Amino acid sequence: MMQHFDDVRARIDAHLRDLGGEVAAPPILREPIVRALSSSGKRVRGTLLIAAGESLGARPEKLLDAAAAMEMIHTSSLILDDLPSMDDAELRRGEPALHRRFGEDLAILTSVALLNHAYGLVVRNHAALSPRRWSAQDVVQRVVDAVGWDGSVAGEAVDLHSEGSTLDFDTLEYIHSRKTGALFVAAAAVGAMLANAAPASLKRFETYAKNLGLAFQITDDVLDVTADAAQLGKDVHKDEQKLTFVKLAGIDGARKLTGELIETSLAAIAQMRSTADPLRQLAITLRDRVK
Amino acid sequence: MMQHFDDVRARIDAHLRDLGGEVAAPPILREPIVRALSSSGKRVRGTLLIAAGESLGARPEKLLDAAAAMEMIHTSSLILDDLPSMDDAELRRGEPALHRRFGEDLAILTSVALLNHAYGLVVRNHAALSPRRWSAQDVVQRVVDAVGWDGSVAGEAVDLHSEGSTLDFDTLEYIHSRKTGALFVAAAAVGAMLANAAPASLKRFETYAKNLGLAFQITDDVLDVTADAAQLGKDVHKDEQKLTFVKLAGIDGARKLTGELIETSLAAIAQMRSTADPLRQLAITLRDRVK
Repeated sequence: MMQHFDDVRARIDAHLRDLGGEVAAPPILREPIVRALSSSGKRVRGTLLIAAGESLGARPEKLLDAAAAMEMIHTSSLILDDLPSMDDAELRRGEPALHRRFGEDLAILTSVALLNHAYGLVVRNHAALSPRRWSAQDVVQRVVDAVGWDGSVAGEAVDLHSEGSTLDFDTLEYIHSRKTGALFVAAAAVGAMLANAAPASLKRFETYAKNLGLAFQITDDVLDVTADAAQLGKDVHKDEQKLTFVKLAGIDGARKLTGELIETSLAAIAQMRSTADPLRQLAITLRDRVK
Repeated sequence: MMQHFDDVRARIDAHLRDLGGEVAAPPILREPIVRALSSSGKRVRGTLLIAAGESLGARPEKLLDAAAAMEMIHTSSLILDDLPSMDDAELRRGEPALHRRFGEDLAILTSVALLNHAYGLVVRNHAALSPRRWSAQDVVQRVVDAVGWDGSVAGEAVDLHSEGSTLDFDTLEYIHSRKTGALFVAAAAVGAMLANAAPASLKRFETYAKNLGLAFQITDDVLDVTADAAQLGKDVHKDEQKLTFVKLAGIDGARKLTGELIETSLAAIAQMRSTADPLRQLAITLRDRVK
């Protein structure tokens, strides 16, 4: 099963590199775009999209464009997150943050170019897959809602402007359900929609991904405290100014919460056929990461 | 006829305000988004989209969402253009540039939120209009191409990194055909596609809009030299460091070039029915602006 994920991740990486080869940008913009597309990443969102679509019988090669779109959107958001006016990070994925190498202007334009391109990619195979329940517009709107002013962008804005202030669990959940959770949920939803999911089934994928996304974020908070930069490939202890689940619940409490979220996640897809096993394995892999 | 444009512009403005009322963002992000949506603008791109669609018989109320999407994309690009790492502007549309009021982080997030939202809006009425020649994916891809790494974003990147260097007419045309022209062409194309344009007809709209967009940009260059900030509502003489058409051809040469582009623009739609008169009037209005 781990073999399966390594294979999916390698295919997503290869597809992102291929897409980088197609970039018709002027050289000055092409370089940061290709760099951003070829940076290493766990590709969890793309993997999630493919696992959701495959569990309903869609062929993974028809889902690769949409999976790459999710990774472009995620990479786009990391580039902004690292900017001096936001988290002011030095490292990302083991390399200098994009603006430190190419300047803020080109980093911002690269971020916009990646988000923008994702909108074409996410429905590029819509006609070939022809899910009769969901139009291309439905799929695009699902992503718009996840990214936008009540999605990741909202989570980022509230996160940036609540540092130092006293937060409660609800606000923290608001931030993370949007900043991380929204794109997790959209990835699973888009994979399911492209595979013609029935509405009730779509709901289960969303519940699964919502809990998985929150567990993923809390895991990140735990690793920020317990791991070092070489392991993570990004700045650590950046969260010292921020309220995190670890600060609210302690490391053990955060680990316990992660375990509960993973259980809820697994329960949502418990009735599904064995084709959903990759989704189960994805959740179990995450649970093992913070043990 | 001018009455017609004032009416269209007022309807686009009202629609943008209505859309601002729907914004489900947290207060900290809602304020800059609403501010950006309610700022004054000429709404040329939205007007162009509606005029193109109407000339093929589509009802304007079905085109308002897509027109608003074009204006959101344009506003999104202006917010970035004004950032310290880009043009570092103080004024925009008669008010402080967005980042000067709300900070760079929220300005950038507002820009992303507007671009993002536009992708849902541009195809929101696709099913209602049901243009049988163009899928929702076709329409989205048309906008992606205009905005992206070979579109406005590319034009902006090259523009920022060619200041001070010696440019020729071809490079200047590269910059403006993307930075301004691409979205003009997409606005006309999307209006035509939503109104089920035949491919040959679409091509004519694109030629019209390409020449109009370049004329519009050169007009801006002329006004940067001849007008003052109170008239334009944005910083003037910002172009002194840049090569512009005015520097290449002089003010009279730039005016002459504008006239020629408008003629080419009008010739492209010369065979079209009287329903295309608003497009003709739009070109003539622009020609009169720099006379």
